[in-house]
Amino acid sequence: SAIAKGSGMIAPNMATMLAFIFTDANIPSVILKSLLSRNVGTTFNAISVDGDTSTNDMVGIFSTGFVKNSKIYNVMDPKLKNFEKSLHNVMLNLSKQIVADGEGAQKFITVNILKAKTAQGAKKIAFSIANSPLVKTAIAGEDPNWGRILMAIGKAEEDIAIDKLGIKLGKLDLIENGQRAQNYDEEKMKEYMEWNSIEINVELNVGKNDFTVYTCDFTKEYININTDYRS
Amino acid sequence: SAIAKGSGMIAPNMATMLAFIFTDANIPSVILKSLLSRNVGTTFNAISVDGDTSTNDMVGIFSTGFVKNSKIYNVMDPKLKNFEKSLHNVMLNLSKQIVADGEGAQKFITVNILKAKTAQGAKKIAFSIANSPLVKTAIAGEDPNWGRILMAIGKAEEDIAIDKLGIKLGKLDLIENGQRAQNYDEEKMKEYMEWNSIEINVELNVGKNDFTVYTCDFTKEYININTDYRS
Repeated sequence: SAIAKGSGMIAPNMATMLAFIFTDANIPSVILKSLLSRNVGTTFNAISVDGDTSTNDMVGIFSTGFVKNSKIYNVMDPKLKNFEKSLHNVMLNLSKQIVADGEGAQKFITVNILKAKTAQGAKKIAFSIANSPLVKTAIAGEDPNWGRILMAIGKAEEDIAIDKLGIKLGKLDLIENGQRAQNYDEEKMKEYMEWNSIEINVELNVGKNDFTVYTCDFTKEYININTDYRS
Repeated sequence: SAIAKGSGMIAPNMATMLAFIFTDANIPSVILKSLLSRNVGTTFNAISVDGDTSTNDMVGIFSTGFVKNSKIYNVMDPKLKNFEKSLHNVMLNLSKQIVADGEGAQKFITVNILKAKTAQGAKKIAFSIANSPLVKTAIAGEDPNWGRILMAIGKAEEDIAIDKLGIKLGKLDLIENGQRAQNYDEEKMKEYMEWNSIEINVELNVGKNDFTVYTCDFTKEYININTDYRS
């Protein structure tokens, strides 16, 4: 069982996001803590609504100890494998729900950075795209604006090679080797942009590091909520 | 004489901002370039509309050589002192105009970071506040939301001491030693927030480094301009 609360001021760095996870498995708290820590980077710390980090995000995991499983002594115990897989799924599911529930959000956006030089670089570029007001408003406007995506990649100031760079929206080619893709299909792309879940796939082709960030679009409703909250 | 063009995608790092500066003073181009470079950090590179860095910002300075002044051989020449002061004023003036003319902007915001530990830290905190959607929407909503300002200071992850921290909006005390200021005046603050130019003064009191960033508020009009531009 697990519950989470979010909506705005979401760019967690384990700092108003709250998430509680419960299990009946009898696993010592120190091991639960390790499992939580190593899954938080790709789940709760891989989401952003507005790029503003709250002052009091938290994720907690609790065991009732109800299940009479054999005792688990360390985090390498093979019995934990399936448990950790399920835990990761629960954490990722809640993380995505927080984004989908973002203030004013109309579209869920997945930003996949593939084949970056470094893991840190992949993350920085992913968040640079996910937090760009111009990318987020373009998606709200249903425009496959590759210029804005390239801008956000560039301002991250990481190692890229423009002639190797590819961008797909979903499975549709947009940019290939740094140029407009030859099989770019305006009609299909227009149809794709109308969906409420959009995938931005950036293939950097300069290394072996991938990172995925989940975010939402930027709408008038976000501005309404965050300017008119006093009235 | 000088002209500049900006409006959105503005967070220059001398990368669609264009600025041209002209002078009749007979100053060698290499010296003009030095003067421009050392004044760009506190002017064109100290502004932000939306935190999105354009792919082709530029500032150029040109001399007609029309004035028959005595030859200038190096950048330390005392004759340059007044010229550089004027140049800085022209650059700062244009930079502020770009911000005031930002997409959908209703309010001009000055963010002063005072007494930071490092120069780099002062700049990072200043831009963290200036680029925060929640700070920018609070100003648009005329709310002296110190919680959002503190959030933006914190997410910069620089050295601060919360018990030493002071925040003023204009000359009005908001936070003093990390707490709501004793002489906080709700009525006066409300009046202040209605002005179209707002000053956020953050005194960190942990060092000797200051930095100022100029930005604008975040309004529904920005979202309109950047989502509906295709129709």
